Amino acid sequence: MSNTQKQLALAKAAKKSVNTADTEEKNRALLAMADSLEAAAADILAANRQDLEAAAGKIPESMTDRLLLDGKRICAMADGIRAVAALPDPVGEILETSTLPNGLKIVKKRVAMGVIGIIYESRPNVTSDAAALALKSGSAVVLRSGKDAFQSARAIVAALKTGLAQTRIDPEAVQLIEDTEREGSYEMMRAKDYLDLLIPRGGAGLIRAVVENAVVPVIETGTGIVHIYIDKDADWDKALRIVYNAKTGRPAVCNSMEVLLVHEDIAANFLPKLERLLVRDRIEAGLPPVRFRLDPQAARHIGGEAAGADDFDTEFLDYILAVKTVASVKEAIGHIETHGTHHSDGIVTENRHAADYFTTHIDSAAVYVNASTRFTDGGEFGLGCEMGISTQKLHARGPMGLKELTSYKYIVQGTGQVRE
Amino acid sequence: MSNTQKQLALAKAAKKSVNTADTEEKNRALLAMADSLEAAAADILAANRQDLEAAAGKIPESMTDRLLLDGKRICAMADGIRAVAALPDPVGEILETSTLPNGLKIVKKRVAMGVIGIIYESRPNVTSDAAALALKSGSAVVLRSGKDAFQSARAIVAALKTGLAQTRIDPEAVQLIEDTEREGSYEMMRAKDYLDLLIPRGGAGLIRAVVENAVVPVIETGTGIVHIYIDKDADWDKALRIVYNAKTGRPAVCNSMEVLLVHEDIAANFLPKLERLLVRDRIEAGLPPVRFRLDPQAARHIGGEAAGADDFDTEFLDYILAVKTVASVKEAIGHIETHGTHHSDGIVTENRHAADYFTTHIDSAAVYVNASTRFTDGGEFGLGCEMGISTQKLHARGPMGLKELTSYKYIVQGTGQVRE
Repeated sequence: MSNTQKQLALAKAAKKSVNTADTEEKNRALLAMADSLEAAAADILAANRQDLEAAAGKIPESMTDRLLLDGKRICAMADGIRAVAALPDPVGEILETSTLPNGLKIVKKRVAMGVIGIIYESRPNVTSDAAALALKSGSAVVLRSGKDAFQSARAIVAALKTGLAQTRIDPEAVQLIEDTEREGSYEMMRAKDYLDLLIPRGGAGLIRAVVENAVVPVIETGTGIVHIYIDKDADWDKALRIVYNAKTGRPAVCNSMEVLLVHEDIAANFLPKLERLLVRDRIEAGLPPVRFRLDPQAARHIGGEAAGADDFDTEFLDYILAVKTVASVKEAIGHIETHGTHHSDGIVTENRHAADYFTTHIDSAAVYVNASTRFTDGGEFGLGCEMGISTQKLHARGPMGLKELTSYKYIVQGTGQVRE
Repeated sequence: MSNTQKQLALAKAAKKSVNTADTEEKNRALLAMADSLEAAAADILAANRQDLEAAAGKIPESMTDRLLLDGKRICAMADGIRAVAALPDPVGEILETSTLPNGLKIVKKRVAMGVIGIIYESRPNVTSDAAALALKSGSAVVLRSGKDAFQSARAIVAALKTGLAQTRIDPEAVQLIEDTEREGSYEMMRAKDYLDLLIPRGGAGLIRAVVENAVVPVIETGTGIVHIYIDKDADWDKALRIVYNAKTGRPAVCNSMEVLLVHEDIAANFLPKLERLLVRDRIEAGLPPVRFRLDPQAARHIGGEAAGADDFDTEFLDYILAVKTVASVKEAIGHIETHGTHHSDGIVTENRHAADYFTTHIDSAAVYVNASTRFTDGGEFGLGCEMGISTQKLHARGPMGLKELTSYKYIVQGTGQVRE
């Protein structure tokens, strides 16, 4: 047995202590974890300094900021755990009941998933977030942190386990895979006897590797090539406000817009207004301007680079916007269905018929009418938290909260019934 | 592009005609398929004779019966399609609605899965069953029949397409993969851009191959190492009736019992009664007796083979029952969790505490108290139909009906809202 397999077996052996814990026990464990995390701040910061020193010069500055912890960020992580404790417990909910003509009583009950695996990149805060969400949903958790954040993750998990040791939840229910080489991830992907679910959280490359190699059931998350289509019947004030927010609010996240589709009848007048807002106004305000990648039609109306072969299939995660003109809502839908990632896509229109046609035919987790796609988020959707945003259709779609981390079972109570 | 890829692309191109069809259009299509199937009976029987001739001597007799079609069976297939038409349409159901403080209206709506792939063995009736369930749930369908039934499946699909051609559903929404070699299945398993879901239906080997090799999201079905535990507080009449039904009712199906666990306090008196029922009474009645595979304790009370190393990990699908004595409900649970397949498992007891402990700790799709495990079935559970029985925890668990073949999406309606 490899070290990774041993850790998977430990999590499986410890899962019952979580799967069958009641709400109070789980909440007590979460609060103990939060306190313990704050108490271990000095150790965690020391470990984080090791990670930062090892990473210096090796990773870009934007990544360094993700990796960096300070006292405030550790308190925020602890408060995040406390917020999860305050959420309603999804486990035990009765989803359906029925009594058959023969007297059999069938109860469909929400139960814990069992053991959840999470493979993520170098964000230390994901370690405590993911552990808290998994435990609250009733599952043991096996974490695989990015190598660059491993020392930080290890110190965080040590603190979480110290907290758990004071409660009735077995500390082994939280495992951080010690093998930070590829093999650690690959063993998790194939650990069908140990994991009930595997969630990759991170960039497109990580997610692809997990989806392609996993034998364990996976929920694919994240990649968002997000489109907004400005219909010929759009209210331009709304359109400008929505595009501005969806593109510039936080370009590096998955619900940010990457592609603007604009009806050809309004392109000549609408696009220059948009250019002023996204380029000139932002430069004047000292903000990074948006750079355009334009199809030949759009290029006749505003300045920017000609769109290359891949520009309509790229998640830029940057101040870059691909722009294309279309002749109809139908053409817009055709483009989105061919080039999108089924994450979040929107239409801006005052035409009810166009809006309904769009929401019916766009096959994405979240379809917007006259609102920014930035709302695709567990917190915004009222789930109270988020383990990621599913872009597949099996099990969960869009933001995943605690309920989306659970399963169900049928309990059938009889008085000796047999089948004819 | 291989022939299989072309067929997958045809299904994907045709999916919109099903995904967005209303209930009436789908039902009209199903009824046309049923009529067309009956009208093509002569062609189907001729194709079936080809399959039977090719299979003669190559496959066991029990398989030949599965493969065989006659007029009555074709009418039963057509009636099966008509029964699916009569079921409620799951698509379009509003699952949740909410209005956020900023005025955004969020509707969570049940939608079609998209394109569903099904890989099955040599049962011609699965061809029409699976096609009908997929279409009614709003999805296009790509079928991969076992090679031995391919001519029959082809004739059936030709008839279904003839029916569809008279309706507004594109006949290309039903594809039967022409490549009956391994490559045909493997291309489906990797067809992430074409299939939203892949369901294997058949024996353990087929299911394992799909789970191990698929990149497309899979629902694992079927294998049932089903346990019944007779508690020391069991009502013996119920216990005997339930074991008799669960073991001998239809031993070749997945919800039939394979392992009996019996409390050691009652083994000496209970097991001889069971032996009389399952062996002597059946021989006297001219029925095949049940053969036991016994642990050393059980062997002291009844006759049978000593259980070998694998006998508690085998889906016999035959008149064979493995028997083991246990010291407590806890030991029974430990055995089931180690050796079971999370399909259906039951307890027979009059002790409410033992029953609750068992249903809480057994992590199976269906957990029974004082009833035969043979009830794990879409029809029996009131789903009206069944595409298979899921033994995984993601998406669907237990019998899968039409709802379990769907997904959902969020439709967000705003008036220009942007995220702060």
